[in-house]
Amino acid sequence: MVKLENINNISLSDSVINLDHGDPTAYEEYWRKIGDRCTVTIRGCDLMSYFSDVNSMCWFLEPELAEAIKELHDAVGNAATEDRYIVVGTGSTQLCQAAVHALSSLAGTQPVSVVAAAPYYSTYVEETTYVRSGMYKWEGDAWDFDKKGPYIELVTSPNNPDGTIRETVVNRPDEDEGKVIYDFAYYWPHYTPITRRQDHDIMLFTFSKITGHAGSRIGWALVKDKEVAKKMVEYIIVNSIGVSKESQIRTAKILNVLKETCKSETENFFKYGHEMMKNRWEKLRGVVKESNVFCLPKYPEAYCNFFGKTLGSYPAFAWLGTKEETDLVNELRRHKVMSRAGERCGSDKKRVRVSMLSREDVFNVFLERLADMKLIKSIDL
Amino acid sequence: MVKLENINNISLSDSVINLDHGDPTAYEEYWRKIGDRCTVTIRGCDLMSYFSDVNSMCWFLEPELAEAIKELHDAVGNAATEDRYIVVGTGSTQLCQAAVHALSSLAGTQPVSVVAAAPYYSTYVEETTYVRSGMYKWEGDAWDFDKKGPYIELVTSPNNPDGTIRETVVNRPDEDEGKVIYDFAYYWPHYTPITRRQDHDIMLFTFSKITGHAGSRIGWALVKDKEVAKKMVEYIIVNSIGVSKESQIRTAKILNVLKETCKSETENFFKYGHEMMKNRWEKLRGVVKESNVFCLPKYPEAYCNFFGKTLGSYPAFAWLGTKEETDLVNELRRHKVMSRAGERCGSDKKRVRVSMLSREDVFNVFLERLADMKLIKSIDL
Repeated sequence: MVKLENINNISLSDSVINLDHGDPTAYEEYWRKIGDRCTVTIRGCDLMSYFSDVNSMCWFLEPELAEAIKELHDAVGNAATEDRYIVVGTGSTQLCQAAVHALSSLAGTQPVSVVAAAPYYSTYVEETTYVRSGMYKWEGDAWDFDKKGPYIELVTSPNNPDGTIRETVVNRPDEDEGKVIYDFAYYWPHYTPITRRQDHDIMLFTFSKITGHAGSRIGWALVKDKEVAKKMVEYIIVNSIGVSKESQIRTAKILNVLKETCKSETENFFKYGHEMMKNRWEKLRGVVKESNVFCLPKYPEAYCNFFGKTLGSYPAFAWLGTKEETDLVNELRRHKVMSRAGERCGSDKKRVRVSMLSREDVFNVFLERLADMKLIKSIDL
Repeated sequence: MVKLENINNISLSDSVINLDHGDPTAYEEYWRKIGDRCTVTIRGCDLMSYFSDVNSMCWFLEPELAEAIKELHDAVGNAATEDRYIVVGTGSTQLCQAAVHALSSLAGTQPVSVVAAAPYYSTYVEETTYVRSGMYKWEGDAWDFDKKGPYIELVTSPNNPDGTIRETVVNRPDEDEGKVIYDFAYYWPHYTPITRRQDHDIMLFTFSKITGHAGSRIGWALVKDKEVAKKMVEYIIVNSIGVSKESQIRTAKILNVLKETCKSETENFFKYGHEMMKNRWEKLRGVVKESNVFCLPKYPEAYCNFFGKTLGSYPAFAWLGTKEETDLVNELRRHKVMSRAGERCGSDKKRVRVSMLSREDVFNVFLERLADMKLIKSIDL
């Protein structure tokens, strides 16, 4: 056993580590410990139809998933679910595109401008440009946006990549012109204090970043307006004729366990996640402080309604900057750490996005390499 | 029990039956009988990562699914898998769009024309128009196509909606100009004789129509050209960051059972499906023959390499026509049968597409209503 561990360590210490993607494998350990309570068993004859509920507008949404979503939001207190349509998607990725499509198709003139305040989630750029739609057009940084006509602002809060709490920035007086899609992928208690119950027209959530089940590709939207929800459903029908039933059933089961354990002292997933993230951030801040080369954003403390106390923020990504005039993504690559370039997020070369959700051993190798970079930089200078 | 059955029958005999969608619930009975061999058990800590195989071009494809796909095609003999890339998708719906996107992005000029010979799968129209892409443009019936420049022809064989065996119809001498996407959703032994091992550049398949597991949303493409496969993978990454792992794992298990039993006398799914379809088609042809109002296409017999004998075709949809000057989809609707209008498939009002894959009781109600329509027509005339 010792021998095997050594080999693994040697192999990891030699290899490139990929912290570009936010693959949330950090939580595997928790789910391993929870045991059989999250196990799903699916027989050959189960879940065969395209339809989950023929009488529902979103007929491909499994009713037990809809129920689990509502109950979890109620238990956590992070979003209002009453008087809303739930639309399920193949990840929030598909839902974000469904929402942009829906709002654009209902707008008076096209193409509708799509903006997000920099630094923004780089994937928004790809999502709104790759099919070269005539219905909407990516217009970049919301801070610089001054085009007339209808627009959609994407607001991610806490923000990906920099972890800040966000509001809209365009804010035009004519309400009809501007629509907002709120991406609340990270508005959960392990990442940030739950300061209020969000209550917006379109809110997106993803299973991936709550529990770490990225492979299931499940997201959901809470949508106030019936016409918008209907158009989103239509988009998903043409795009993929609905969403995997197996993933929906499994998500429902796991969200139920999340809800059942979320007041427990010993099994509370959010407490586990919060402690892990806090610990990782403290370690990372320690290395950065020692380095004199790197910097990280600071986050204010706030009272968390879920935990019932004042807490800090521990985002899923570190928005790492450098004080030197250097191309940070290349510097990290030279040290076998893959990260996402700040430029792709509408920022500059001196910043990168680094996933904080890797497996523990990978995270520790990252810290070691970051510490080494400081040393190498000192020699270079 | 008898009472309950009566209630069900009364409720079904009163209600609208939906044969517009091709929901393949006909096969549930088989999978109920096969028992535990297709049961999958997934633990809470399984399948969490976005990645299935970091070293594969299609890194979100589960290796065991890739293996099961190859083995099933080998066992059935309907498609060549060697020297090809396998791309998995959220149904062949997503893959068809990925393929159109890939071929368009590699074309010299845009928009690329997209055509299919009428009558065509009506969803192709929606798939190629809903995002109003500048990269490609739906140009309708391939028989009428005479536009210059690059084009993509969609060839569905056996064809949806009319069950005929199809080849390309545009056939321009300049190979670089025209690309073909073969949709082989129904090229399986229960629907049509397997007369050859298909060997084209891009071939699409879907789990839904083989075994009836439509709810899983799994399709795959067999792609010869590396650049095309790469572009398809890129499309799926931006569209949905991969494909449900739960569905992939379950599909792999069921395809394996399909392969293992496909030479069996008692458990062969294709034999079961073939007999069921043959039986349904014979009943339907019987009603149509009696009616003097309706008509159906005839299909030639052919030697099936899989079953080792000469057999007929029993398509998943009936392409029902009427000899009267009437709007058939409305006539059927008046008799509480939902079907797909011929006009949506590039044909006329006198034809509709009717699913042959409903549950047995629904199919029987359809036959009864069709027989009644004949009577009502006779009175009307």
